[in-house]
Amino acid sequence: MSLLIVGTVAFDAIETPFGKTDKILGGAATYIGLSASRYLDKQNLVSVVGEDFPQEHMDLLSNRGVDLGGLQIKKGEKTFFWSGKYRNDMNTRDTLDTQLNVLGTFDPIVPENYKDCKYLMLGNLMPSIQQRVLDQLPNRPKLIVLDTMNFWMDNFWDDLIDALKNVDVLTINDEEARQLSGEYSLVKAAKKILGMGPKNVIIKKGEHGALLFNHKEVFFAPALPLEEVFDPTGAGDTFAGGFIGYLAKTDDISFENIKRAIIHGSAMASFCVEKFGTERLQGVDENEVEERLNAFIDLVQVEMAL
Amino acid sequence: MSLLIVGTVAFDAIETPFGKTDKILGGAATYIGLSASRYLDKQNLVSVVGEDFPQEHMDLLSNRGVDLGGLQIKKGEKTFFWSGKYRNDMNTRDTLDTQLNVLGTFDPIVPENYKDCKYLMLGNLMPSIQQRVLDQLPNRPKLIVLDTMNFWMDNFWDDLIDALKNVDVLTINDEEARQLSGEYSLVKAAKKILGMGPKNVIIKKGEHGALLFNHKEVFFAPALPLEEVFDPTGAGDTFAGGFIGYLAKTDDISFENIKRAIIHGSAMASFCVEKFGTERLQGVDENEVEERLNAFIDLVQVEMAL
Repeated sequence: MSLLIVGTVAFDAIETPFGKTDKILGGAATYIGLSASRYLDKQNLVSVVGEDFPQEHMDLLSNRGVDLGGLQIKKGEKTFFWSGKYRNDMNTRDTLDTQLNVLGTFDPIVPENYKDCKYLMLGNLMPSIQQRVLDQLPNRPKLIVLDTMNFWMDNFWDDLIDALKNVDVLTINDEEARQLSGEYSLVKAAKKILGMGPKNVIIKKGEHGALLFNHKEVFFAPALPLEEVFDPTGAGDTFAGGFIGYLAKTDDISFENIKRAIIHGSAMASFCVEKFGTERLQGVDENEVEERLNAFIDLVQVEMAL
Repeated sequence: MSLLIVGTVAFDAIETPFGKTDKILGGAATYIGLSASRYLDKQNLVSVVGEDFPQEHMDLLSNRGVDLGGLQIKKGEKTFFWSGKYRNDMNTRDTLDTQLNVLGTFDPIVPENYKDCKYLMLGNLMPSIQQRVLDQLPNRPKLIVLDTMNFWMDNFWDDLIDALKNVDVLTINDEEARQLSGEYSLVKAAKKILGMGPKNVIIKKGEHGALLFNHKEVFFAPALPLEEVFDPTGAGDTFAGGFIGYLAKTDDISFENIKRAIIHGSAMASFCVEKFGTERLQGVDENEVEERLNAFIDLVQVEMAL
């Protein structure tokens, strides 16, 4: 089933207690696409890069089935760049540098042959850009997933509230859920956010797993206890990519299947953090995914009836 | 099966964003006993209080099947008192006052008729006191659970390390596991701690659930997402009480049953935090426990095979 991904394609420079990288391939849409490619042969991408974006990165995406017809390449301009450093706990990071470059004037144009998409992943971007994508689609997709962050709440509150009205699944982390709702309790936060429009809210708690709420039900997916977290960059986007990739592949958006999709997303994210950037994600094979899904199920497996 | 609980019986004065209490009934052994009483008709207690400890609190414990033959009542002395204030996030608390009183000279004496205990819960206490209890038992209990905290690591490291050598299950929170092991990753921390003697380690993560490790396996029990956490005091002890109460009742210490016991302990703890002190714990009925156990199971239930 056709999946359209909208999000950043970028350069990242990352420093963790385990080492540092030069400019490497990054961006929300990159992680989403690589992760979703485990489930789909073909995905469409709307994004923007500068003239400095190398052919090898485009080939990597193409080889994974990511169609680049919607990737704008801006002559004479530079690709979005982010640089960050993780502290020793690996949960806190400081942004060292952000160069918006091509992202500063990004106008997302959805190619005609992408417009019938059934699954739409709106990666973390300015809410008005996310909305402009929605406005170009003649028919509402079967499922719209939107990711956002605190920066947009701080600076573009009204636009974000508008965009949320159209959303089937909002993915957000725990601190952002608290900020968006004004509630400390995540149960209360989820209820308030569901009142803003999204039919489902996934609250990502990093190493503490993820909570899924709709108006009637709640589900909790643990994170796999990992011996080493090497680089958390892109884990949330990798989660989103596995999540929507699985849903698009199975074409079933029941609550039961959304639960399964969260386990798939969590499994993909658990690979992502094992190496710098997209490196580990590129090397994952089918058996490893299967093994890790089983590990997720075993982790919480308990037979209560004696 | 006979359960012996060793721990504090105390007065607490608690302040949370929702209100404050005068001196109310508290102490690790109190919470453990009240929680375990859901599973057992009779439990033995070794502890100490002062002359100021009221009859009504002793009656409350007696009525729940807690035998007070091992409760020392020190004439002319005062009961251990702790006072604390929770911050708005309910995860951080500041100790306002600690008056050791009778606890300062506590010498735990195990009555003859307690010495054949099959299940032993060593609540959070000075490690040398925990060890002195072990030294009085002619036969090793079938299961020894020990709870501890960072204070003993800071001040009585060697005693704690000695006590850990004899333990079947160590319960500890995530920060304490990191301190005890010197490892940030909880997987690595658990491995190191298992190397110190305990056959199982339960790492309590509060609102993020609990992890169980032995040398071969790992299990994760979520915490129930609660709308309101009113007072977290005693939640860890209530967990321990439900945990060992269930194990003593079923008299099965297989890994599978330890997993079940964690769910029972988590369910009991989820009640504890809903009101101040032991209030909610006193009022829990059988149907409510059943309902909450089901909620725990449903929370992570997902059928992966399509």
